[in-house]
Amino acid sequence: MSIITAVETFDIRFPTSRDLDGSDAMNPDPDYSAAYLIIGTDAGDGHEGHGFVFTIGRGNEVEAAAIDALRPHILGKNAEELLADMGTTWKLLAHDSQLRWLGPEKGVMHMAIGAVINALWDLKAKRAGLPLWDLLAGLSPEEIVALVDFRYLSDALTPEEALEILRKAEPGRAERRARLLAEGYAGYTTTPGWLGYSDQKLTRLAKEAVADGFGQIKLKVGASLEDDLRRVRVAREAVGPNIKIAVDANQRWDVQDAIEWMGHLAPYDIAWIEEPTSPDDILGHAAIARGVAPIPVATGEHVHNRVMFKQLLQAQSLEVLQIDAARVGGVNENIAILLLAAKFGVRVCPHAGGVGLCEAVQHLSMFDFIAVSADKDGRMIEFVDHLHEHFITPVDVHDGCYWPPSAPGAGAEMHRNTLAAYSYPDGVEWSATSAADGSFELVPEFPLKEAAADA
Amino acid sequence: MSIITAVETFDIRFPTSRDLDGSDAMNPDPDYSAAYLIIGTDAGDGHEGHGFVFTIGRGNEVEAAAIDALRPHILGKNAEELLADMGTTWKLLAHDSQLRWLGPEKGVMHMAIGAVINALWDLKAKRAGLPLWDLLAGLSPEEIVALVDFRYLSDALTPEEALEILRKAEPGRAERRARLLAEGYAGYTTTPGWLGYSDQKLTRLAKEAVADGFGQIKLKVGASLEDDLRRVRVAREAVGPNIKIAVDANQRWDVQDAIEWMGHLAPYDIAWIEEPTSPDDILGHAAIARGVAPIPVATGEHVHNRVMFKQLLQAQSLEVLQIDAARVGGVNENIAILLLAAKFGVRVCPHAGGVGLCEAVQHLSMFDFIAVSADKDGRMIEFVDHLHEHFITPVDVHDGCYWPPSAPGAGAEMHRNTLAAYSYPDGVEWSATSAADGSFELVPEFPLKEAAADA
Repeated sequence: MSIITAVETFDIRFPTSRDLDGSDAMNPDPDYSAAYLIIGTDAGDGHEGHGFVFTIGRGNEVEAAAIDALRPHILGKNAEELLADMGTTWKLLAHDSQLRWLGPEKGVMHMAIGAVINALWDLKAKRAGLPLWDLLAGLSPEEIVALVDFRYLSDALTPEEALEILRKAEPGRAERRARLLAEGYAGYTTTPGWLGYSDQKLTRLAKEAVADGFGQIKLKVGASLEDDLRRVRVAREAVGPNIKIAVDANQRWDVQDAIEWMGHLAPYDIAWIEEPTSPDDILGHAAIARGVAPIPVATGEHVHNRVMFKQLLQAQSLEVLQIDAARVGGVNENIAILLLAAKFGVRVCPHAGGVGLCEAVQHLSMFDFIAVSADKDGRMIEFVDHLHEHFITPVDVHDGCYWPPSAPGAGAEMHRNTLAAYSYPDGVEWSATSAADGSFELVPEFPLKEAAADA
Repeated sequence: MSIITAVETFDIRFPTSRDLDGSDAMNPDPDYSAAYLIIGTDAGDGHEGHGFVFTIGRGNEVEAAAIDALRPHILGKNAEELLADMGTTWKLLAHDSQLRWLGPEKGVMHMAIGAVINALWDLKAKRAGLPLWDLLAGLSPEEIVALVDFRYLSDALTPEEALEILRKAEPGRAERRARLLAEGYAGYTTTPGWLGYSDQKLTRLAKEAVADGFGQIKLKVGASLEDDLRRVRVAREAVGPNIKIAVDANQRWDVQDAIEWMGHLAPYDIAWIEEPTSPDDILGHAAIARGVAPIPVATGEHVHNRVMFKQLLQAQSLEVLQIDAARVGGVNENIAILLLAAKFGVRVCPHAGGVGLCEAVQHLSMFDFIAVSADKDGRMIEFVDHLHEHFITPVDVHDGCYWPPSAPGAGAEMHRNTLAAYSYPDGVEWSATSAADGSFELVPEFPLKEAAADA
């Protein structure tokens, strides 16, 4: 038996706004950040659990405070007990009646719960000597169902229906695992498409994406229709007719705006329109889906829990479901969402990028392929070639695919010197700059970055 | 011109769990709390702006940290500029692109924005020498519309439609203001109905409620059907046939559970079923509304923003809309929600209780009656007779009604000695108890407090 002896939190920020990496119609100047935690035990096996919430700068300290608020639930507790029954551990955190008031099950507090849950899964996978995807894909259907909180889901998915989905996929697991190792899991790239990039940079990066084997790129849109039309044309010329182009409005529009805007972009063979409006607007997404058909609607990176995904599926609001590793309540709730997607027959194409989102979410898609949906046709994981060097086991992406990680754990562990150098505001990467004085540019009106800056 | 020179935050907690005040099916042991702020200026007029987020204990420090994160937006700024255009000030806070990532527009960060906005309204009303309801009800329709962020609303409510609603109500304002002063605004009470109370205490408090002139009481339900049936019968015997009895499940059920449970309670003439399931479940509430008709469905205290309320109205998920003064983005967003309710013809019966929620929300209902819906038939404000002594201008509730406050401000100002004594963990009310060591009872399974404790 071992005891959890440390729950250490870090406020890690990367000054990405300096080059407009990550700029879009709603987020003109993000500083990619992570509210990060490390769980230590007295087991003496050298294993730690690492987890994080991805944020884009200001407020990262609030997210770290939320992780701190969960510390009493795990510090000093029996590690084996927590790790042996992760379904109960999820409920322990998500059903703290006082903390639940701060959501419920949404926003800062719920994301903090996800980070702690993911750190525990990291520890569990390291102890098992397996990468998380392989650990999850080796669980029995009953064990997987026991991880899921079905509260508020039973009108769409019961435990019995979930078991049926998982049992149906069970016979083919070994074959799909072998296919995954041989074929990889398709990725697509957003690297060329940030709103702050010039046409020249877009062209260069789009051509590189094709050369790197990606079958799809994605462009940020929604700030200026004229610019969007030009950029979609520029991108199409760069990639040719056989590469898919998706677009992403990052919640920029109201319902009617989205339908009209996409009407203009429709002739350019758009693979999907992502986040056309508020992630809360289930009925709005449904209206947009009807209005822009046959262009598929994609959303999910800001959808805050399984109850919202349930309704997006019930209302036929999306054709492409985009899970995020660090938005909902961690691995457990993402398994609930993967089961919902399988029930409704919707493909899952995870959101990634940011800090460590690629490293984390690949495990979920690979698990899904082996044990849940049994499908990877038309499915792909977002890829942004950015900040991977800060991770001990960065993603292995080549030939347009993610290749299954073999290192034990959940993939979210950063280098110790990164944690030191990018700690805000005292790390050397911040204390050396004027940004460390806490000053920043406010964005008083709705953020628009119409002028592109070349890097 | 004056400058905002101080934004002071406080973590205030009341040890209400000791007597099970506020206990319900999801919240067995709340410690009613407030993440509280005071805005000071160099105007030399003695006016401060006070605002708060209501929480139920643990995590209140996270909410205070979120208010701290907003400080750079107002500290050192021109107070007159911020107060003169509160619509733009709302956007300044809600559209901070980096902080927005932590929601968006939900949970800890959004509630913190609401507290800051409400504190600014408190300051503005004090400067005007008016109670907030009277200040708001004196604005022109154009000024009111300028307070609202219509983003994500235009498929249900446009600025032009909002103007039309407000202009239609304009001619009768003076007459309704006089009626409000003469008649008060109806309240109903939840004081008898907490789940932790014995049948004897329920009976005694229910009879007191009738003697106090209330036309409706509300009981917490959802933990045990047998107990609920008995308690509804006990309450009906206590209040007689002419007093309404509403019930509140505090999100305890899934969709089918709610419909079946309410089938059992239906014979007891239930005024409404409140929060039958997750506040996120718009489609679930709609299914429940169809399934329990003609019993009205009520919800709103945990509904996190105007986009969710829009959909609850679009989907006919509720008949009674329950705004909360400290859940959404403050006065401005609540005005958006009042306008939506008026557009859809749905009555508004605010959630209150907690800490200061009665003091705060009464202003919104009174403003709504004078300037928006022009209606108070069937509308009432929740009342819980608890913790009012900590406020400088506590609510005036008698003869079953809220009576319009005359003191300038938004009503949320606590006594300085309360702020000192109940500061957590160092105030004398906490440092004198064992709770101050940070220990607490975890609730490992979904909270249920089936055994009632008598006080």
